[in-house]
Amino acid sequence: MKIGFIGLGNMGAPMALNLLKAGHAVNVFDLNPQAVQTLVDAGATASASPKTAATDVECVVTMLPAAAHVRAVLSGDDGVLAGIARGVPIIDSSTIDPATVKACAELAAPHGNAFVDAPVSGGTGGAAAGTLTFMVGGSAEVYEQVKTVLSAMGKNIVHCGDTGTGQVAKICNNLVLGITMAGVAEAMSLGEKLGIDPKVLGGIINTSTGRCWSADTYNPFPGVIETAPSTRGYSGGFGTDLMLKDLGLATDAAKSVRQPVYLGALAQQLYQTMSTQGAGRLDFSAVIRLYRHDGDA
Amino acid sequence: MKIGFIGLGNMGAPMALNLLKAGHAVNVFDLNPQAVQTLVDAGATASASPKTAATDVECVVTMLPAAAHVRAVLSGDDGVLAGIARGVPIIDSSTIDPATVKACAELAAPHGNAFVDAPVSGGTGGAAAGTLTFMVGGSAEVYEQVKTVLSAMGKNIVHCGDTGTGQVAKICNNLVLGITMAGVAEAMSLGEKLGIDPKVLGGIINTSTGRCWSADTYNPFPGVIETAPSTRGYSGGFGTDLMLKDLGLATDAAKSVRQPVYLGALAQQLYQTMSTQGAGRLDFSAVIRLYRHDGDA
Amino acid sequence: MKIGFIGLGNMGAPMALNLLKAGHAVNVFDLNPQAVQTLVDAGATASASPKTAATDVECVVTMLPAAAHVRAVLSGDDGVLAGIARGVPIIDSSTIDPATVKACAELAAPHGNAFVDAPVSGGTGGAAAGTLTFMVGGSAEVYEQVKTVLSAMGKNIVHCGDTGTGQVAKICNNLVLGITMAGVAEAMSLGEKLGIDPKVLGGIINTSTGRCWSADTYNPFPGVIETAPSTRGYSGGFGTDLMLKDLGLATDAAKSVRQPVYLGALAQQLYQTMSTQGAGRLDFSAVIRLYRHDGDA
Amino acid sequence: MKIGFIGLGNMGAPMALNLLKAGHAVNVFDLNPQAVQTLVDAGATASASPKTAATDVECVVTMLPAAAHVRAVLSGDDGVLAGIARGVPIIDSSTIDPATVKACAELAAPHGNAFVDAPVSGGTGGAAAGTLTFMVGGSAEVYEQVKTVLSAMGKNIVHCGDTGTGQVAKICNNLVLGITMAGVAEAMSLGEKLGIDPKVLGGIINTSTGRCWSADTYNPFPGVIETAPSTRGYSGGFGTDLMLKDLGLATDAAKSVRQPVYLGALAQQLYQTMSTQGAGRLDFSAVIRLYRHDGDA
Repeated sequence: MKIGFIGLGNMGAPMALNLLKAGHAVNVFDLNPQAVQTLVDAGATASASPKTAATDVECVVTMLPAAAHVRAVLSGDDGVLAGIARGVPIIDSSTIDPATVKACAELAAPHGNAFVDAPVSGGTGGAAAGTLTFMVGGSAEVYEQVKTVLSAMGKNIVHCGDTGTGQVAKICNNLVLGITMAGVAEAMSLGEKLGIDPKVLGGIINTSTGRCWSADTYNPFPGVIETAPSTRGYSGGFGTDLMLKDLGLATDAAKSVRQPVYLGALAQQLYQTMSTQGAGRLDFSAVIRLYRHDGDA
Repeated sequence: MKIGFIGLGNMGAPMALNLLKAGHAVNVFDLNPQAVQTLVDAGATASASPKTAATDVECVVTMLPAAAHVRAVLSGDDGVLAGIARGVPIIDSSTIDPATVKACAELAAPHGNAFVDAPVSGGTGGAAAGTLTFMVGGSAEVYEQVKTVLSAMGKNIVHCGDTGTGQVAKICNNLVLGITMAGVAEAMSLGEKLGIDPKVLGGIINTSTGRCWSADTYNPFPGVIETAPSTRGYSGGFGTDLMLKDLGLATDAAKSVRQPVYLGALAQQLYQTMSTQGAGRLDFSAVIRLYRHDGDA
Repeated sequence: MKIGFIGLGNMGAPMALNLLKAGHAVNVFDLNPQAVQTLVDAGATASASPKTAATDVECVVTMLPAAAHVRAVLSGDDGVLAGIARGVPIIDSSTIDPATVKACAELAAPHGNAFVDAPVSGGTGGAAAGTLTFMVGGSAEVYEQVKTVLSAMGKNIVHCGDTGTGQVAKICNNLVLGITMAGVAEAMSLGEKLGIDPKVLGGIINTSTGRCWSADTYNPFPGVIETAPSTRGYSGGFGTDLMLKDLGLATDAAKSVRQPVYLGALAQQLYQTMSTQGAGRLDFSAVIRLYRHDGDA
Repeated sequence: MKIGFIGLGNMGAPMALNLLKAGHAVNVFDLNPQAVQTLVDAGATASASPKTAATDVECVVTMLPAAAHVRAVLSGDDGVLAGIARGVPIIDSSTIDPATVKACAELAAPHGNAFVDAPVSGGTGGAAAGTLTFMVGGSAEVYEQVKTVLSAMGKNIVHCGDTGTGQVAKICNNLVLGITMAGVAEAMSLGEKLGIDPKVLGGIINTSTGRCWSADTYNPFPGVIETAPSTRGYSGGFGTDLMLKDLGLATDAAKSVRQPVYLGALAQQLYQTMSTQGAGRLDFSAVIRLYRHDGDA
């Protein structure tokens, strides 16, 4: 299969590599020539523009930082829609707001193209290993059409419903995630001050009703879970600024549908405080540092 | 073994029954004569006072609504300490603040008695089935001493550390629980308004990083988890007023050790609002009703 | 002086009337023909488009619901910039985000026009009475240039600094306002439940360190301040949905400069809850109803 | 008039001095002998116990750190109630919870003494200058009886209603105060980042609907109000730990009457964070430092 791939950042580059490994032919485009060269060395074809990358392909994949980039790559004289053939699906794996997804789908429809939102979870590790989860928004037919391509890059390909629901799923999951992590940080810090051994407390929560991914897999208290970022100085993992971006998408989406999100809005301020204090690149579980002011956490 | 049991409410009564079933002889005391009669019918001996219940036994168990009751039952002319022999452990399974636990332990020490905090999780269902989890605070020796008695009433008997740490474990776990439930309620309500099928959203969260007991076992959105209280009108389960009590214990404990609990304090206000609006007896997952103002939730 | 005025809503119509009363000649434009007719009856000239309204005038004033309208009125073949002469200032009295103000100023600059942000406070009452406060963003020269026109519509014309700072002043003031009102609502409701006469409590706060406009002028508890909206069923006044819009601008602006706003974000959720429950058109002091669940409040 | 005065701390000492200055004879008691000596040097009589201080006087005044001290000073063999004559009023000017006030009133009633809550505002400056505000809870007759004594120490003597309402007034006022100060801190920090001159912003808020004591008298941004603690490094003023104590009383009282206090609970966490970070003795307006992470604030 011939695929156009646009956006070769920390996530996009390994995803495109996995398409090549699966035997697909891939046209690549990125503003960064070095990123392009790496893919070309691996067998991809460099394209001069999104338009060129989208020409004569059976599928287009985009992986970009934010909504503005997606809109820009899609439209204009050099954009994807200027080169793509009718009937070819456009899969956008960026994490953006559901409203932009719908706007993009409306831009693509007159050209005869489905615009499919397929944001991922699994991080750079999952992108490299090809074990990402894709949350796909689009009709049942389009979902069947794009499943094969996505399977070359991920392990779980979940159909969430119509256009935009992939983003909704991602945003809502990360809303829960941002809240539970800060909640676990509060409870672990409180327990420590009240004199319980954090490992014991972690063990109890993880076998009880407080059980959650933020406690049993990514526990923010150093040493409770050996493989968690907290145990290696909050390096690696899911960056605070990315969590902040996703909570921003969640509260914006909530505003747009007039829905209160009390804990989400408060969690957003906590991660914002971290970021303002210079911890934006640490794993988001470092939010526990807002609660612990002594020791080595 | 001969055991004194004080407090035969919704939790205490089935717990005492399980002691009888395990073959122990049980002296029971409660202010409610009907509750006493039920246990006597099952083979227990009625006592005229906490003092009498605690006389000539090898272990005393108390299961009471709040700290004031525990203090009252312990001291005074008719209290446990007036009747109990030296060396007999007092196990308190009430959920109360760690400071009261320490005060009670100091009251009991001069009489030669260990006061062990052993609050439970598992609800009335777990109490009836004998599958409760006990979180035990006390020395390693005392823990070994009380383990057999607790095993007749529960499945998991966890040693949390010194006196008071059982309560700390319970409070911290329920702090996480109260926060995650409200967080899941926000995300499920937001997802619904943004147009995703709640069952699909539930499925994604439960296999992703938002995974938690509040989503995969007690999901607050009706119909997502068939066995959850939300699916039967929020009846049964863990009452909102009990969650409110536990969050009150958590924020009070946080205040006492000068520890901020941002999300915990906010979650407390949400459950308080529910309770003020008359929903105190519904399962705490009904907190989702603060977010959904239409439909049948 | 000859002035073009665009936007004849609840605020714009009385403002344009005051310009006429002050002896100015006014070209008016609005999509609503009835609103235009009222002004024509009072001596204004109807214009067929923003372009026409801006042709051959010495000043243009716009008063529109949101940022999108301001952008639309400014540009395009029928827009203000298509008709306006070089050197004529454009005063925008809408409440919009500072980023849009800067974008509009950049659109106007090549045409030789200053774009001045001049949002107001004082409500429809102040608009009718000509007692509005204008918060003006622009250079000192432009401020001198527009002062006379604004003086016909308001009492306080405050120079806030460069382009955009008028909106910043308005947003920050209303951020304080939204927080203090909800804070006073909490304190008055709490005092009532604790048994103090609300009028007595109001009197104490208003002569003490809790003193604020939300307590001494717009007290949310019915009957404390006779002239407040709370005393007339929360009718009139400053609508909840308008407060919600302004808090949305504040939290968006905060996000754009990476600044936490804990109380602002929480207050936004409270007003959002009111609005979702159908109280969006009541005065924003009706937020007290979230705290009082009985009686006639 | 002969008065017994118990509690000679930062507030009590200058208050007792003002009673002496007004010509009253004063028995004083404090655990700190140096504090007693200073008052004796000024003409007071040292007492060996609260009982002695309360013997043969026409009025007793207590000014103590917390509820536990008030209870302790009142009862016991050496307590006020052991020495005081029937009909003599006990004025407690400590800031404590309304429930303790009622408990103390019930202790005093059988002895024939009215227990009057009369907490103050005005700080150590007002205590020295004799310009305190007293918020008095008690019957109209008792209020008339104690007014003269209080007038020697304060300027405003406000009758708030029955026993306990003085504390309610103080707690509710300080709840508003704690919220507005943090709200002003958010708005001033946001305005600064968005590029408006803080002095200009302060001026606009102070003449607009955001107007409040926290902005126009104690503005947290350095340099906006010359006489505010912010302008002298947050020294003097009303300590963060005192604000934290009062917000603790407010949220506890709210819990006791089942009343939500969203913003109050959040503000409490903010001041708690400050205190945990070592800023407990700074004026509470230093809460702005949680929002500004650069510069000299």
